[in-house]
Amino acid sequence: MSLVECVPNFSEGRDPSKIDSIVETIQASGATVLDRTSDHDHHRSVITFAASADVIGEAAFRAVERAVASIDLRTHSGVHPRIGAADVVPFVPVRGATLQDCARIARETGRRIWKELGVPVYLYEAAALRPECRNLADIRHGRVGSPDYGDEHHPSAGAVVVGARKFLIAFNVNLQTPDVGIAKRIARAVRHSSGGLPHLKAMGVLLATRNLAQVSMNLTDFEETPIHVAFEAVRREAERAGVGIAGTEIIGLVPERALEMTAAWYLQVENFAPGIILENRLENRSGQV
Amino acid sequence: MSLVECVPNFSEGRDPSKIDSIVETIQASGATVLDRTSDHDHHRSVITFAASADVIGEAAFRAVERAVASIDLRTHSGVHPRIGAADVVPFVPVRGATLQDCARIARETGRRIWKELGVPVYLYEAAALRPECRNLADIRHGRVGSPDYGDEHHPSAGAVVVGARKFLIAFNVNLQTPDVGIAKRIARAVRHSSGGLPHLKAMGVLLATRNLAQVSMNLTDFEETPIHVAFEAVRREAERAGVGIAGTEIIGLVPERALEMTAAWYLQVENFAPGIILENRLENRSGQV
Repeated sequence: MSLVECVPNFSEGRDPSKIDSIVETIQASGATVLDRTSDHDHHRSVITFAASADVIGEAAFRAVERAVASIDLRTHSGVHPRIGAADVVPFVPVRGATLQDCARIARETGRRIWKELGVPVYLYEAAALRPECRNLADIRHGRVGSPDYGDEHHPSAGAVVVGARKFLIAFNVNLQTPDVGIAKRIARAVRHSSGGLPHLKAMGVLLATRNLAQVSMNLTDFEETPIHVAFEAVRREAERAGVGIAGTEIIGLVPERALEMTAAWYLQVENFAPGIILENRLENRSGQV
Repeated sequence: MSLVECVPNFSEGRDPSKIDSIVETIQASGATVLDRTSDHDHHRSVITFAASADVIGEAAFRAVERAVASIDLRTHSGVHPRIGAADVVPFVPVRGATLQDCARIARETGRRIWKELGVPVYLYEAAALRPECRNLADIRHGRVGSPDYGDEHHPSAGAVVVGARKFLIAFNVNLQTPDVGIAKRIARAVRHSSGGLPHLKAMGVLLATRNLAQVSMNLTDFEETPIHVAFEAVRREAERAGVGIAGTEIIGLVPERALEMTAAWYLQVENFAPGIILENRLENRSGQV
């Protein structure tokens, strides 16, 4: 069976009961809630949940329905830019589902949100119907014209941006130096925007509590640019600067597959295939959620 | 939920229909068959299956019952030493179950085999009731006296050796040399029996088809001596001999956990915990078999 993740953002970070209610409706749809975080200042919550491809769309729809019924943007204030009560709803393939499967789910769910809830929908990234909608920031800043489904924003719920994207891994490398300049130079060397590895975003920051410089990275396609490739690139640049690696951190969740790829690479396994892993031989692997 | 593996050996390697029948009864008990291999010369078959701790004992019992009904040792010949129709039945903890849990399951299953089938049972390794029964070879060679349950061997089915052991990982490292002497020296340096790493067995062999020397290893407790520790020990010895690593092979199955440990070690992950892996957050993780 397939496994798809959904990571919707809601414009409510102060009333836990409203988020509880959304979590309940997600669980009642047969999906598994993996994580939830709320931020008071941003007045925003993120819920991470997973289900098989045939369940995830219904769970996301029910979550949006609950948010539309309970969150009123007219009485809302918060630092984070937002366009809707349910703000952004990305579908992410984990196992046994493709990015195209997720794009299809996103479009179907988007259509339902407009037809049944009367809230207009923009489709972004892999689900985008127009090239100008691929980038979420362009939709947020009103640079893309009318929604893909519907027209005028809903008075209390605004609009929803629904889409599909690959799994994002947040991976930070701590350097054995407090010199944030070195971390910034390494970030420039490894990230795609300044000529480095594809699907890699990076910045240099100071970890004040530990007085260590850190290369903070987002891997937006770990199958194309795996964790070990990013790590080895940072290590090589750090060595060149005469700096060791203090350690690393994975922020949030990482899919099993990314660690399997890393282990197989370091161990130089010639016959590596998912089928050599015991758990992968089990029926319903990763589909039972 | 828990996950336990069982890897019974049967004294039948020539009639596939008898093994089919055993496989069917295992599946009918709710366990998942992961692998099966039969060897004509050894006249022997190995079936690998997995289930939760509360199902695995029943599935193993039904498999032994079927073997006792269909395999007659009096008409049997084969190279492999054997004491029973169902010869050796080890239970192996994979996730959410301890070696002690598996020892308990082994003893319960052994008692049932004697009481309901009238076939005597020896208990070995972690399930052993007497120190002299810990080593399977001592039981095979008749050095341990009477069975733990029952007495005289069954006329057609002999006896069954039931036990509990840790997961065994077969991991081979191919060297960039045809000199098997180097592989033998490395094996001596890394294996426990000659003063090397605990829970590691190793020998040097020649891979004739590729004209490469190989360090062939069994890791009998990958949580105490993980794959990366064995690999780095071999690599260091090989470097000392001026030889590179051509590649490695994992023979049979490897539990996900062993690869997670390896990835976390090479990536120097400071905050590594099973909970950062997405699949581990799913309900019924690894229990749905």
